[in-house]
Amino acid sequence: MKIAIIGASGHGIFVLEGLRRKPDISAALVGLAPGSEGESIIPIAEACQADGLHPALYKDYRRMLDEQKPDVVAVNPFFCDHERIILELLHRRIHVFAEKPLALTVEGLVRLREAYTRSGIHLGCMLNMRYEPALRAAYNAIRSGAVGEVRLVHAQKSYKLGRRPEFFKQRATFGGLIPWIGIHAIDLIACMSGRRFVSVYAAHSTQNNRGHGELEVSASCLFRMSNEVIGTAGIDYLRPSAASSHEDDRVRVAGTEGVIEVRDRNATLLNSAGICELEPDASTSLFGDFMDEIRGTGRCLVSTEETFANTEVALLARLSADSGKVVFF
Amino acid sequence: MKIAIIGASGHGIFVLEGLRRKPDISAALVGLAPGSEGESIIPIAEACQADGLHPALYKDYRRMLDEQKPDVVAVNPFFCDHERIILELLHRRIHVFAEKPLALTVEGLVRLREAYTRSGIHLGCMLNMRYEPALRAAYNAIRSGAVGEVRLVHAQKSYKLGRRPEFFKQRATFGGLIPWIGIHAIDLIACMSGRRFVSVYAAHSTQNNRGHGELEVSASCLFRMSNEVIGTAGIDYLRPSAASSHEDDRVRVAGTEGVIEVRDRNATLLNSAGICELEPDASTSLFGDFMDEIRGTGRCLVSTEETFANTEVALLARLSADSGKVVFF
Repeated sequence: MKIAIIGASGHGIFVLEGLRRKPDISAALVGLAPGSEGESIIPIAEACQADGLHPALYKDYRRMLDEQKPDVVAVNPFFCDHERIILELLHRRIHVFAEKPLALTVEGLVRLREAYTRSGIHLGCMLNMRYEPALRAAYNAIRSGAVGEVRLVHAQKSYKLGRRPEFFKQRATFGGLIPWIGIHAIDLIACMSGRRFVSVYAAHSTQNNRGHGELEVSASCLFRMSNEVIGTAGIDYLRPSAASSHEDDRVRVAGTEGVIEVRDRNATLLNSAGICELEPDASTSLFGDFMDEIRGTGRCLVSTEETFANTEVALLARLSADSGKVVFF
Repeated sequence: MKIAIIGASGHGIFVLEGLRRKPDISAALVGLAPGSEGESIIPIAEACQADGLHPALYKDYRRMLDEQKPDVVAVNPFFCDHERIILELLHRRIHVFAEKPLALTVEGLVRLREAYTRSGIHLGCMLNMRYEPALRAAYNAIRSGAVGEVRLVHAQKSYKLGRRPEFFKQRATFGGLIPWIGIHAIDLIACMSGRRFVSVYAAHSTQNNRGHGELEVSASCLFRMSNEVIGTAGIDYLRPSAASSHEDDRVRVAGTEGVIEVRDRNATLLNSAGICELEPDASTSLFGDFMDEIRGTGRCLVSTEETFANTEVALLARLSADSGKVVFF
């Protein structure tokens, strides 16, 4: 299978990680091209070189698609271009491994879903939280009943701000903190609770964003889930630059029989048996699973249906934060 | 000064702790009496005995007030009786050290506030979070600018459920999880942010409450504060019985220059200088400060005005959770 990457503004690196993890994979990275006007592909080109990969470099991704005829394309341009490029790939009947959020508007998401449903192709997404080894261990334990019935989930995504690219500074090109980062917390709440989203109330703020224009740097969401489960998310770009890691991802899942927490890449279970650390689960990679799904030999931890659902939840959470109103799903 | 205690259903124990911490205090515990029909004062009477205190025991608190003529009365009966007894003490012009919430309805709170304003007496409240040594250390550091401008606060109150008294099983006598426990998180959000509450959206659930009737065992609140600061609270009775401590209280305060967290009774500051543990501050006690406030030689960390405000916020958060609507202050 031939793989290409469009864009270098998100996590195209997941492709390289997947190839590294599966050296026996019968797949080749054949091309790289920017997806947005003014986008540089130098970072991903350098990462390829470091991995001993030498894809052809293109200025125009359409020419790359015409010439290389890839089977699978990873899409990670400026976020405002996700929808357009994914749509184009669906029309060309090329499997898509897309950066989140799939679209920046609900209308765009509906268009994508229609095109996807008609296409019969595979659409994977760079929603990687369930593949984080400690989070995956927590998820496995919860699914096997370690905390009984889940009642309350709190997820935290905290990152260093640093200096973000220019396109982060406009809502029109960036999309917002909740669709970009909050969507990971949404996916965690969805999978850890195993429940359906009923409504959301959210807040976000651009204050103190150190000259980043319209970029929100703090946000919180409260989700009412089916069966009266409650999920909350805290999202921020306030992690101090002196911190030892870029991100401070956490989740706490409280159930009727125990509590599971992930913090500092460790998963801890507290229940009637006492406290124990859970063995991290790094058994497969996000992109590796997607390749297996295309081949029909495996499947992604996040289904395409869940990806569409999470994206819609994120866009409606942003609407709630913008409007100050509760939004129902 | 003569002190009496009415009720044994809350934290009358704070009085004993205050007396223990200030052995030179010129104050004597003169009487104990139940405040609610069917309430037992055995627990607090036993605690007094263990401290070498021998207050007179009464069945009727009115007789106790008439005979002992206390200067200060701690009030902690069934929660539905807080308002009525506080009101009676205000009318008798006796200083009140009251369990929270001051009242179970907004109307009741308005009545209390009017009576308090007219009375000229001192009204303290068992809102003790700011006196927890690690939380107080965090509060001191934030007030001195250690995290810059506070943008996001998340507070957690998680307790073991165990078997709760009968009056916990009815909203009419208990008042609800948010007014009873959530109010502590509300006080933390108020003091750590230094901001005014603008609106609240909340959810709570009685599901899986192990036969506790109308008692909610999980809840979350999202507060929009002034200056676009966001506060969230997670409140639950889901702490596993095997846990090493009864409660799992936490707060995370993210600001423009750093993050402070309290967890397991430790306060940690992360900012440009790196990570450091904050020295716990146990310099004064809640009841000791209240006694000093009455004498005019000190003041409580939580003012009476803040106590009324926190109580109103808690009652309106409960209204939001009941109604599913955003409530503005």
